[in-house]
Amino acid sequence: MTAPNPAYAACPVPQPDRGRVRLGHGSGGQLMTEMIDEVIVAELGGAGVLEDAAIVDVDGTDIVVSTDSFVVTPRFFPGGDIGSLAVHGTINDVAMRGARPVALTLAYVIEEGLELAELRAITASVAVAAAECGVPVVTGDTKVVDNGAADGIYLTTTGVGHRLPSAAISAGRARPGDVVIVSGPIGAHGVAVLCARGDLGFDTDLRSDSRPLHDLVTAMVAAGGEGVHALRDPTRGGLASALNEIAQASRVGIDLIESDIPVPTEVRSACDLLGLDPLHVASEGCLVAMITPQAAAPVLAAMRGVSAGAHARVIGRVVDGPRGRVTATTLMGARRIVDTLVGEQLPRIC
Amino acid sequence: MTAPNPAYAACPVPQPDRGRVRLGHGSGGQLMTEMIDEVIVAELGGAGVLEDAAIVDVDGTDIVVSTDSFVVTPRFFPGGDIGSLAVHGTINDVAMRGARPVALTLAYVIEEGLELAELRAITASVAVAAAECGVPVVTGDTKVVDNGAADGIYLTTTGVGHRLPSAAISAGRARPGDVVIVSGPIGAHGVAVLCARGDLGFDTDLRSDSRPLHDLVTAMVAAGGEGVHALRDPTRGGLASALNEIAQASRVGIDLIESDIPVPTEVRSACDLLGLDPLHVASEGCLVAMITPQAAAPVLAAMRGVSAGAHARVIGRVVDGPRGRVTATTLMGARRIVDTLVGEQLPRIC
Repeated sequence: MTAPNPAYAACPVPQPDRGRVRLGHGSGGQLMTEMIDEVIVAELGGAGVLEDAAIVDVDGTDIVVSTDSFVVTPRFFPGGDIGSLAVHGTINDVAMRGARPVALTLAYVIEEGLELAELRAITASVAVAAAECGVPVVTGDTKVVDNGAADGIYLTTTGVGHRLPSAAISAGRARPGDVVIVSGPIGAHGVAVLCARGDLGFDTDLRSDSRPLHDLVTAMVAAGGEGVHALRDPTRGGLASALNEIAQASRVGIDLIESDIPVPTEVRSACDLLGLDPLHVASEGCLVAMITPQAAAPVLAAMRGVSAGAHARVIGRVVDGPRGRVTATTLMGARRIVDTLVGEQLPRIC
Repeated sequence: MTAPNPAYAACPVPQPDRGRVRLGHGSGGQLMTEMIDEVIVAELGGAGVLEDAAIVDVDGTDIVVSTDSFVVTPRFFPGGDIGSLAVHGTINDVAMRGARPVALTLAYVIEEGLELAELRAITASVAVAAAECGVPVVTGDTKVVDNGAADGIYLTTTGVGHRLPSAAISAGRARPGDVVIVSGPIGAHGVAVLCARGDLGFDTDLRSDSRPLHDLVTAMVAAGGEGVHALRDPTRGGLASALNEIAQASRVGIDLIESDIPVPTEVRSACDLLGLDPLHVASEGCLVAMITPQAAAPVLAAMRGVSAGAHARVIGRVVDGPRGRVTATTLMGARRIVDTLVGEQLPRIC
């Protein structure tokens, strides 16, 4: 070994400051999990953190509650905007616990200087989306911060709902033998937002898939009852993160057939160009489900009867192990590990 | 009349752009009410907007839900920080509808570059405050935005609770003859934050009064039942805004005896210096109540038995009219109108 070249020592490669929050801490992948586990759960305690929504007993009634902040940029994109996304995202998180959403709250953080016309347009979009979902916004809050202390507007929506009587859905309930079903093509939201941001360098016709999934979940639970074990909508971090979270929470393995995963051509092209794995790209209008073999056929049939599930299909199986690991059999017949997103590729996607 | 001096015409006084959001739109006063009424309620519809919290029927159970974003600067101030404030503020809003808070959700918007140690300290403060209140944080969300797209960290808390069986509390239920009671001295939070910001140019020993009020409300409802007509915690916009909102929602007048309103000496001095009315300065640990004459004595006694209400006192009466107007009899015996805050004096106070 030679001594280090002093010229290199004088020009160190910049290293991320490990004591500070980085953009990747918000991308839905491994860094985010680390921050949540090591800082937030370490202080607050862990109950319910791996779930999209919590179940709370209020006077003997099981209430499901979920909250999400929305910081997407740009605020308007093909297929939606920050307002409709905030409604759909929170309704879907409530639905992923097998619950029917009943009401939403809405909190604004607004940057001084935002045009009132834009505030009105975003609020109108919230109102239309909430009305279409049949879930009213019942209360809210507005804060204004000085110019430069936010990027236009951020929204936080919280949803409350009641658990469907026959539902027993949790990220920890996947069992070996369960069939893995996805409700439709993945990745459209992430690519549509990147495209609207100008990150692709070309245009696509792709629109965000942002839409509510609560009717789909109601149909699935009606058809499959307690055979519906786990549900997740693969938003930040994509299908890979959603499946890894379920594999870890349930202490099972998941095997996918890569060629069976529906990836739109435009999503695949954009991912090739950007060096992204489509399994890491956010969807906002599809879900992945772990269903008992007995319930799989009726659930699949019920899903295909709802517009959001028209293209539902089986993409894999839950297996004994290795526990906490997701693998995929590739087109070439090889098996690869499907890891969660590492790094900072997709900030502010929702 | 003379022609305008062309030198003035060339140097117009800068006018606020009426088509854009200004800091004053977040200050809890008249501008905020205008923005909420003309933009947000106009799009979303008005149910529950004048209340601190909404009542939602979930499977036959009355759930009370409230949400608030917290953008206070600085994030640490004498008597609290953004974490404890986010817990107390939301718990208090749930309590103001006569409800017992059961669970909280917590959503973070974090600026890239925030020290993880600070994120941990704020989260620890949330955890301590929630544990002291006996109300767990059951679920949450973390978003990260790029450097310059937030000011450190913003929190949004949502609280769910169940309505106390004998409570029938609403901003619209104040009735002529009701006694107006305040639970303690006003304005400490606002002045403590301004002082921590360096806006005062001098130090005070004053600490924020940030604290939970749900035990106080439980004691009040136990003592007064349906005689507790309206409750409000005078945060942004201060006691003046809280009372004006109640006067308008209930279509009544409110008469205060100015010398009976408890204003700490430090709050009065700071307000004199800054040209503020103490009635416009935020509290985070007191409430104002409209109580029937029959219930006033037992409620007052019950309040004084709880630490947060030890200094409770009567400050005025609800009267027939003028409807929607709050007046105060001054030390000199004159009557003055107590208006809501206009302008931008107190941004980012919570």
